[in-house]
Amino acid sequence: MPTERRAFNVGLLGHGTVGSAFSELLVERAEEIERFNGLRPVVSGVLTRSAGDFEEILADAELIVEVMGGIEPARAHLLAAMRSGRHVVTANKQLLSQHGEELYEAAREHDVRLRFEAAVAGTVPVVRVLEESLSATPIERIHGIVNGTTNFILSEMANGMTYEQALAEAQRIGYAEADPSDDVSGRDAAAKMAILARLAFGTPVRLEDVRYEGIEHLQRDDLDYARELDLGLKLIGTAERREGGLSVSVHPTFLYSGHPLAAISGSFNAVTVESETITEITLSGPGAGGRQTASAVLGDVVSVMTGGARPPAPPLPLELVTDVDSAFYLHLDVADRPSVLAAVTKVLGEHDVSIKSVVQRGLGENARLVMVTHPVRESSLRAAMARVGEFDFLRSTPRTIRVIEEEFV
Amino acid sequence: MPTERRAFNVGLLGHGTVGSAFSELLVERAEEIERFNGLRPVVSGVLTRSAGDFEEILADAELIVEVMGGIEPARAHLLAAMRSGRHVVTANKQLLSQHGEELYEAAREHDVRLRFEAAVAGTVPVVRVLEESLSATPIERIHGIVNGTTNFILSEMANGMTYEQALAEAQRIGYAEADPSDDVSGRDAAAKMAILARLAFGTPVRLEDVRYEGIEHLQRDDLDYARELDLGLKLIGTAERREGGLSVSVHPTFLYSGHPLAAISGSFNAVTVESETITEITLSGPGAGGRQTASAVLGDVVSVMTGGARPPAPPLPLELVTDVDSAFYLHLDVADRPSVLAAVTKVLGEHDVSIKSVVQRGLGENARLVMVTHPVRESSLRAAMARVGEFDFLRSTPRTIRVIEEEFV
Repeated sequence: MPTERRAFNVGLLGHGTVGSAFSELLVERAEEIERFNGLRPVVSGVLTRSAGDFEEILADAELIVEVMGGIEPARAHLLAAMRSGRHVVTANKQLLSQHGEELYEAAREHDVRLRFEAAVAGTVPVVRVLEESLSATPIERIHGIVNGTTNFILSEMANGMTYEQALAEAQRIGYAEADPSDDVSGRDAAAKMAILARLAFGTPVRLEDVRYEGIEHLQRDDLDYARELDLGLKLIGTAERREGGLSVSVHPTFLYSGHPLAAISGSFNAVTVESETITEITLSGPGAGGRQTASAVLGDVVSVMTGGARPPAPPLPLELVTDVDSAFYLHLDVADRPSVLAAVTKVLGEHDVSIKSVVQRGLGENARLVMVTHPVRESSLRAAMARVGEFDFLRSTPRTIRVIEEEFV
Repeated sequence: MPTERRAFNVGLLGHGTVGSAFSELLVERAEEIERFNGLRPVVSGVLTRSAGDFEEILADAELIVEVMGGIEPARAHLLAAMRSGRHVVTANKQLLSQHGEELYEAAREHDVRLRFEAAVAGTVPVVRVLEESLSATPIERIHGIVNGTTNFILSEMANGMTYEQALAEAQRIGYAEADPSDDVSGRDAAAKMAILARLAFGTPVRLEDVRYEGIEHLQRDDLDYARELDLGLKLIGTAERREGGLSVSVHPTFLYSGHPLAAISGSFNAVTVESETITEITLSGPGAGGRQTASAVLGDVVSVMTGGARPPAPPLPLELVTDVDSAFYLHLDVADRPSVLAAVTKVLGEHDVSIKSVVQRGLGENARLVMVTHPVRESSLRAAMARVGEFDFLRSTPRTIRVIEEEFV
């Protein structure tokens, strides 16, 4: 006669790539988890598009795992689960970045756990590190590569592909969807940065509060010039204290080669957390993949079983600021006349834009002027570039890309 | 009249660099911690070498923080604290690597928390990541740079200093002690790897079970040749499943430039965790410093206040294996005769040592032969090198250094 197991019932909402990988992984790991926690997790019910009844699944479960994606019915199900005292684990970044406060408040009100590691950076455990270290150290800044698809595309472009070639390659090997717009527009990364910013700074940040810019407009020759300036190009999410407020954004960004994120290539994700107390820590790992995401979800389930971290505290908002200082890379296609550099630098100077380095190249009608500025208020840079854009010697619209120029250890 | 605070009393054992930084940080962060947890941590008593009474401190405290270092009386105090139902947080790697099982068992028996993030990799949160992800994924291998002093010295040697110059520089800026032997011998790293191996593989590993080798014998020209072979040199701790058992060691090791630890420079620490499920994740950050260590200790205190992770489960030991396969770099000073390379490769071949790359350089009596092997059982390599060492054309003892040659994404 078998010994009776003490089961921990998990109701699973969604059974696509992540959901089925999760079911599989749970079976593989159940014994080891039981050895550590004295409880054996089992999937007690599954809701798919065509089968399963949410109310029945809820009645049987101690914890609900939501990997359906989308806003509804995921939101309604998670709220209902918490109201009836169930813990929840979700991988749903859209939902958290648009209705996070409502969910966090429900978790606090009903005293249940709400975990969402898989919603942010795949297997990279940035959520639990932020949750646990947050109280011990005031965070100043987070930089993240939080979208593996775009990092893969940029890595391939750095190796010589055009944007179109790199995107096609990403689609061929399954890193990019047939419709890649959520990734390449920066919107996916913006949702993740909204979630991280809430955790790190206690400020409710919704997806629509995040300024974001994608990688579709990048040119391979930007990468060529960048290499000469010893810069690497990444899609970087930033959340940082600025001017007494909080700035959250996602932009294609050049990094100096010593930056800890400069070495992150392929479909990996990485997040750097900076604070006065800890200086900086960097976490990196695979961005996605069904089994990796499932592993992060299962880690959250185990964390709930061991009585892990509480939901985010009530917000203590900082003001969101949008006009902050950055260094910029400027790329101008110009007719090669003697007066061009002088004319451009004069206009830049009138808007307090100071130049750190210049590369000028080419002859006749094909000259290019590439500059990196010292840090300057973005609004000043935009005003300067609007005036530069009026010069008749310009052969195309000037391109500007942010640069992170801090020196790291 | 002030509102009465709900205090969480912390007894502090030790008031050196880390202890005083901890007291200071606790005061700075108390309000924020209270906002998250509803409890305000306060230091209710301090034991120094000359003041304080342990029994009185224990009576007042809910949690004991131990940052005294050394084995006794730290061990006795922590055991006494747990027996009387107090949670404990320690930064004491010597103690955990020599008496870990006794402490873990006491924590389980008395159902208290035992946390020790600061004992392993400074601010790098590898302990909590291993604890939480352990159940969700079977770990195959850990590679770590877990001693900041030696990483600093090796970074300076890569920039052209001799070992002696780099050590003197490390001492000058406070990264190395006046007596640096615990660091440069690899013993400090070995203690940390023993702790990590226990967490990741459930196998009790004591400091004396870890094979370790230091950096004192490294020559700058090893680094010069390594650069030609596109290798970087680090002091790497390894804990990995091998031959159905567990191998734990610390050695100077050459890494191919694509390895995630190859880019970790200066006094930073970093740990890479590999598993089939998650592929690999890498965590990096500052190795030490009083305030950084204090921050890790405070993170553990907060984790206990929120009901964080349990002590390690009872052991489920793997056999410790010591003779495993590695690739090796071989450096031979030889007289430059035509027969030398043939003679050496013949002996290597007879012991199944296969050569991957060779650099031969020099003239007359100053020739050097530098080789990298394919992976080979260490005992075979040692046997081969014993025979090579007998050749009369050798001008000094051959040098061998491990090489990690896996290709990473």
